[in-house]
Amino acid sequence: MSLVRQFNEYRSMMNEKILAADNLIIKRIFNLDTNAYQAGALDIKSKELIGLTCSLVLRCDDCVKYHLGKCKEINLTTEEVHEAMGVATLIGGTIVIPHLRRAFEFWDELMKS
Amino acid sequence: MSLVRQFNEYRSMMNEKILAADNLIIKRIFNLDTNAYQAGALDIKSKELIGLTCSLVLRCDDCVKYHLGKCKEINLTTEEVHEAMGVATLIGGTIVIPHLRRAFEFWDELMKS
Amino acid sequence: MSLVRQFNEYRSMMNEKILAADNLIIKRIFNLDTNAYQAGALDIKSKELIGLTCSLVLRCDDCVKYHLGKCKEINLTTEEVHEAMGVATLIGGTIVIPHLRRAFEFWDELMKS
Amino acid sequence: MSLVRQFNEYRSMMNEKILAADNLIIKRIFNLDTNAYQAGALDIKSKELIGLTCSLVLRCDDCVKYHLGKCKEINLTTEEVHEAMGVATLIGGTIVIPHLRRAFEFWDELMKS
Amino acid sequence: MSLVRQFNEYRSMMNEKILAADNLIIKRIFNLDTNAYQAGALDIKSKELIGLTCSLVLRCDDCVKYHLGKCKEINLTTEEVHEAMGVATLIGGTIVIPHLRRAFEFWDELMKS
Amino acid sequence: MSLVRQFNEYRSMMNEKILAADNLIIKRIFNLDTNAYQAGALDIKSKELIGLTCSLVLRCDDCVKYHLGKCKEINLTTEEVHEAMGVATLIGGTIVIPHLRRAFEFWDELMKS
Repeated sequence: MSLVRQFNEYRSMMNEKILAADNLIIKRIFNLDTNAYQAGALDIKSKELIGLTCSLVLRCDDCVKYHLGKCKEINLTTEEVHEAMGVATLIGGTIVIPHLRRAFEFWDELMKS
Repeated sequence: MSLVRQFNEYRSMMNEKILAADNLIIKRIFNLDTNAYQAGALDIKSKELIGLTCSLVLRCDDCVKYHLGKCKEINLTTEEVHEAMGVATLIGGTIVIPHLRRAFEFWDELMKS
Repeated sequence: MSLVRQFNEYRSMMNEKILAADNLIIKRIFNLDTNAYQAGALDIKSKELIGLTCSLVLRCDDCVKYHLGKCKEINLTTEEVHEAMGVATLIGGTIVIPHLRRAFEFWDELMKS
Repeated sequence: MSLVRQFNEYRSMMNEKILAADNLIIKRIFNLDTNAYQAGALDIKSKELIGLTCSLVLRCDDCVKYHLGKCKEINLTTEEVHEAMGVATLIGGTIVIPHLRRAFEFWDELMKS
Repeated sequence: MSLVRQFNEYRSMMNEKILAADNLIIKRIFNLDTNAYQAGALDIKSKELIGLTCSLVLRCDDCVKYHLGKCKEINLTTEEVHEAMGVATLIGGTIVIPHLRRAFEFWDELMKS
Repeated sequence: MSLVRQFNEYRSMMNEKILAADNLIIKRIFNLDTNAYQAGALDIKSKELIGLTCSLVLRCDDCVKYHLGKCKEINLTTEEVHEAMGVATLIGGTIVIPHLRRAFEFWDELMKS
């Protein structure tokens, strides 16, 4: 199975289980997470770039994958994504590089699908 | 092999190898780690909740799995574990969510065994 | 001015300014933060111990101070607080020690007030 | 002295001393840091929002202050800055809140100058 | 395939793709990364010990693996590597232990090759 | 009072209070911390460089100050200290720079005393 499909399927399956647990705090965080990336004072593109780069400096592969998927949906170009990830790597240091590798791999696969 | 068994076997095998290396600092940290979760001014339940949530905010999947195993041994309920993880997710932010997914999956498997 | 009063006054003043800014995401996080430490599946004591130790391993002095204040309000003993902070220092490593110093100083002042 | 002036003066003074030390790695990082926020595939506004939010989730007060100063220079509105910081607080969790307080204080002062 | 070969092949393949993307910031970080570990005021051994331990406290498995490979190339002994990792575990806390397990496994494989 | 004296006095005073609290875990961590930097498979210089750089990438100002004091005691040169800090800044990213400023300031003061 492709990286993208594997990521999406596991994410959907587990989100469903987490929400089924009906914990109030968790449900509200999930709800807030959905709303936070809607257009407001900032447009969606700016918010996805924030989501992508914060995920990268915090070195969360799954968060990076999720936001790369969103970046593709809203038609960010490869150059824009690369540049955002370059700035994030500078901020977060060479410790970010292994996550950059996996991000490039995932983006490449997204571009082919 | 199940997630639980895979985790436990790798952990045991490598702990044995690490201790066999006979490095004084490492051995003392391992020894201290074993003792720290015994009942003292705080009971075992409080300490395992601390271990679980600190592991989650620090986003260490293996540490979360270890403490989930302990939480089951001392009969914490699913509601208690979920609520603790909810508070940890609030403290640590949405960046914790991918670790929450893997924690839910592991806890579910523990509950079935 | 005492450390405790200085911390509380700045915190109150800035929380008021932040909430006055009327940003939806921030207001909801603040609201969730208030509710999350109420008794539920876990009692208040367990939740404050989680708040204290997660703050310590994440090395946030102000968060530690806030939860120490709460720990005092709900009558945690000095031995309980010290033991919780000991476990957190073991989990988070010697890098936590400078924060432990400031936590001890703050707790001492809380105990005298 | 105002927070803004104090921050800028210390930053300039120490940057000068650091560059005078003539360490090749450090000089190249500083040089790269200057260039990275220029317009390229992404415009300056997007890059400053990335710098601001990554600094906030990594909980670096001085980095936040620096990017807030830049956000003002390029005329980001208070609503845009607040919303970006709201998303960052959601990603990074309540542990970010003490840094949010100091960020609001600094931005308020910037707005008055 | 062995852990070592798998790591090296993926790393080489992705580094090539990243450099082919021709992003200026990323290329300069990669270039700086190559130069930083050359002998200068500090010898190569000191620099690799820095690279190894910083990678461990920042809990980056791939960075640890890379520096373990380098440590072997420059003939650090197992005792030296273990002691460095012991100090890093003390600094970073028990949260480092799962990464220590994978580091021991990788070093063992390196020693056999 | 000078930065160096202020740091040393607060550190000594609080360490004394922490040890007086007589918490077993904390006492053992402090004891281990003292022993870990003695010469063993690695010499003292290598260990202090590890302590300094790990402190810097983990962005702990007080830990950096402590190890800078030790680096001076064992006669590391300014060039060695700068180079170690340069490598740490590359690993940890530009987010380390504010800590680098305070480290340079502290080292300068140490050199004058």
